[in-house]
Amino acid sequence: MRHILIIGAGKSTGVLVDYLLKKSIEHQLHLTIADKQLESAQTLSQNHSNAVAIELDVFEPEQRKQQIKKADIVISMLPARFHIEVAKDCVAYNKNMVTASYVSPEMEALNTEVKEKGLIFMNEIGVDPGVDHMSAMQVIDRIRNQGGKMILFESFTGGLVAPEDDNNLWNYKFTWNPRNVVTAGQGGAAKFIQEGKYKYIPYHRLFRRTEFLEVEGYGRFEALANRNSLKYREAYGLKDILTLYRGTMRRVGFSKAWNMFVQLGMTDDTYVLEGSENMTYRDFVNSFLPYSPKDSVELKMRHELKIDQDDIMWLKLEELDIFNKEKKVGLKNATPAQMLQAILEDSWTLQSGEKDMIVMYHKFGYELNGQKKQIDSTMVCLGDGELQTAMAKTVGLPVAIAALKILDGEINNPGVQIPINPSVYNPILKELEVNGIRFRESETEYLGYNKLNL
Amino acid sequence: MRHILIIGAGKSTGVLVDYLLKKSIEHQLHLTIADKQLESAQTLSQNHSNAVAIELDVFEPEQRKQQIKKADIVISMLPARFHIEVAKDCVAYNKNMVTASYVSPEMEALNTEVKEKGLIFMNEIGVDPGVDHMSAMQVIDRIRNQGGKMILFESFTGGLVAPEDDNNLWNYKFTWNPRNVVTAGQGGAAKFIQEGKYKYIPYHRLFRRTEFLEVEGYGRFEALANRNSLKYREAYGLKDILTLYRGTMRRVGFSKAWNMFVQLGMTDDTYVLEGSENMTYRDFVNSFLPYSPKDSVELKMRHELKIDQDDIMWLKLEELDIFNKEKKVGLKNATPAQMLQAILEDSWTLQSGEKDMIVMYHKFGYELNGQKKQIDSTMVCLGDGELQTAMAKTVGLPVAIAALKILDGEINNPGVQIPINPSVYNPILKELEVNGIRFRESETEYLGYNKLNL
Repeated sequence: MRHILIIGAGKSTGVLVDYLLKKSIEHQLHLTIADKQLESAQTLSQNHSNAVAIELDVFEPEQRKQQIKKADIVISMLPARFHIEVAKDCVAYNKNMVTASYVSPEMEALNTEVKEKGLIFMNEIGVDPGVDHMSAMQVIDRIRNQGGKMILFESFTGGLVAPEDDNNLWNYKFTWNPRNVVTAGQGGAAKFIQEGKYKYIPYHRLFRRTEFLEVEGYGRFEALANRNSLKYREAYGLKDILTLYRGTMRRVGFSKAWNMFVQLGMTDDTYVLEGSENMTYRDFVNSFLPYSPKDSVELKMRHELKIDQDDIMWLKLEELDIFNKEKKVGLKNATPAQMLQAILEDSWTLQSGEKDMIVMYHKFGYELNGQKKQIDSTMVCLGDGELQTAMAKTVGLPVAIAALKILDGEINNPGVQIPINPSVYNPILKELEVNGIRFRESETEYLGYNKLNL
Repeated sequence: MRHILIIGAGKSTGVLVDYLLKKSIEHQLHLTIADKQLESAQTLSQNHSNAVAIELDVFEPEQRKQQIKKADIVISMLPARFHIEVAKDCVAYNKNMVTASYVSPEMEALNTEVKEKGLIFMNEIGVDPGVDHMSAMQVIDRIRNQGGKMILFESFTGGLVAPEDDNNLWNYKFTWNPRNVVTAGQGGAAKFIQEGKYKYIPYHRLFRRTEFLEVEGYGRFEALANRNSLKYREAYGLKDILTLYRGTMRRVGFSKAWNMFVQLGMTDDTYVLEGSENMTYRDFVNSFLPYSPKDSVELKMRHELKIDQDDIMWLKLEELDIFNKEKKVGLKNATPAQMLQAILEDSWTLQSGEKDMIVMYHKFGYELNGQKKQIDSTMVCLGDGELQTAMAKTVGLPVAIAALKILDGEINNPGVQIPINPSVYNPILKELEVNGIRFRESETEYLGYNKLNL
């Protein structure tokens, strides 16, 4: 038996464990599922004969080292900042390692030692980052191998609610960490490159500079720019590319409505509101509107945001019950962003049985034999209930597949890495397809970056 | 003779020196004007028999201590962050000290020692902070002494161009540090209190939430909220006040036009533009606008900011020559704010002979014998040429007057302080009036805070 140590029994770990347990007899796997909460680990081990659940505090070095020593490979599903201690032990005891998180500078610093020891530390192998890297690089490498030259790459991902449960005016529910949704786009201007020109969008304009995308069978979406589109320019080998743009997908109309919160200052996470604990939803709204001795919060809001009487934006606000005079958030020393999150969670929390959806959209523009061409590639993954959410599947499956293929020696290029090499992404994408995560490609006319379609 | 050491021969020091030299015979004063640049100090000493110019590097402890030892009082006109070493020496050698800067935590920490030694460290005695403290506290204390209860205090200051030289469409020129103007309002939401309600305005809305003010003989102004209006709530004894609002004054229309730069992201000082050195003015503008293969920067700008064909906003932009295809800023690794500043300095730099203006406006609302009343108090100071700017006068004069009155023992309450006590502000305001800096008061109907006048 080969021993797989899985640390952290969070949301995406269930799918990961399921996959590995299904393969456990054929592949002779034994899983140790470790979590600070023993019950969380036990829920996932399902009393399977090839799995054991243990309690593990990752900050207890003795306990941690002991478990890592016994393993053949370690999967860390902990929050990103906790990986590094596990990684150092993996170096010390010569164990391979897999995480779905961004490569931190500390992780990167282990690269030389990891390589020398012939180890594989695979990171960024969830959905975004992860599936996006693999699916993009497969097409980019194919174009290059045909002798093509990349001139445009745009890539979009969205975590949304499945069409059958998409039943509010925002066409949105929280399917992952709500805090990240509320503060998305903050921390500096979005930067990207279009037809060779660097472009910058400040946070307060970001939600009004979307572009539209159509996914066959799923209708229209919109996308807004991520903060740094240029992050993988070197890693993807796109140094001289004319257009490089990465973004987040939402259903059409979401961003324009979300912009109301941005404009009012409700997404600010940098200061605390006076008396937040006793504020009603209505008080919260009113604190961002001018004082008036007589006028209603509603009219001030309409006036401040220029919302016409018949504008659907208004119904979107009303749907959130944001003018309620009784309901209180009840948070002490809360920032505007924390208050807003609490109000939105009332309306946007997935109910039992409701399903999520992950959508990904890549555009590849290239020149081949003097002709400009474009390939669009899309992926839609739907959730199947509470444990098999689309998010859990698209994060958990690639992690599980990568771990197994490393264990089997199928992936064997050493180093601290992300999945951008053919020897890594090809076998993983193939296995993802078997498990229902597949991309559909289409060739379209190359238009270049032309937002207004003029 | 009493020895006054003046460190830092900057913009406001000229007026200060002039005032003290005029008094030097009657009051037996000898000035030592010290600066890193000997010539700057010499220009100010004017070969006057009661003044000497010296070269002084404030970071040379021996030299600094030697000069401070010889002085009877020290005036530091250095940038705020350099005061503290001077202050420590003043404590060591038992010297009084005057600065126009905000009290830093390090300065505040000296208070116990300063008091024990019976010394006076007078700070925030320029124009803003300074003249604003004194003129406000004089009225507030008078209202209280009559048995009145303060219910509203609003206070506004603006550094502007004098009416006779107010000849551009923005009704604005740089009269002080341009960098502070370009980045004004950044760093967090503006916070204030209106009729008992805390209100918050995010930076990107700040310039669209102005209020109007009328100054007799000078026409209309507008004011926008400072970041923290509540800063002096305790110091002024206004703990339970219903409305407390501090702001910056501009000519009507400036803020709405300035908001164009804010909206585009041109005032951002947190990141560097790619290739800033080779950007033309037009390139700079274009980097904040969507890419288009055909459309002009002008049309994209009009579209992005919704500027109608006949809108004066457009003329304001054109006046800055901001669409110029040839002119380059030529700054390496420049932030948007640095680029914008350079472009504005082309148009907004005071020309030789042009004059500036300082405007101050206070509103005091109070209850007396069951009646609500209001006093408005305004001050306008005009510059008289290059050395006698309004800014230099309103900063330099109160500093000089305070220093002399401390030396004469007329101001004698020890401690690290700001000028909010009657024993300090009364004699200084009186002497300021003699020198042309005077407030005009008027009683008006109390309306409370009611921006829309409904």
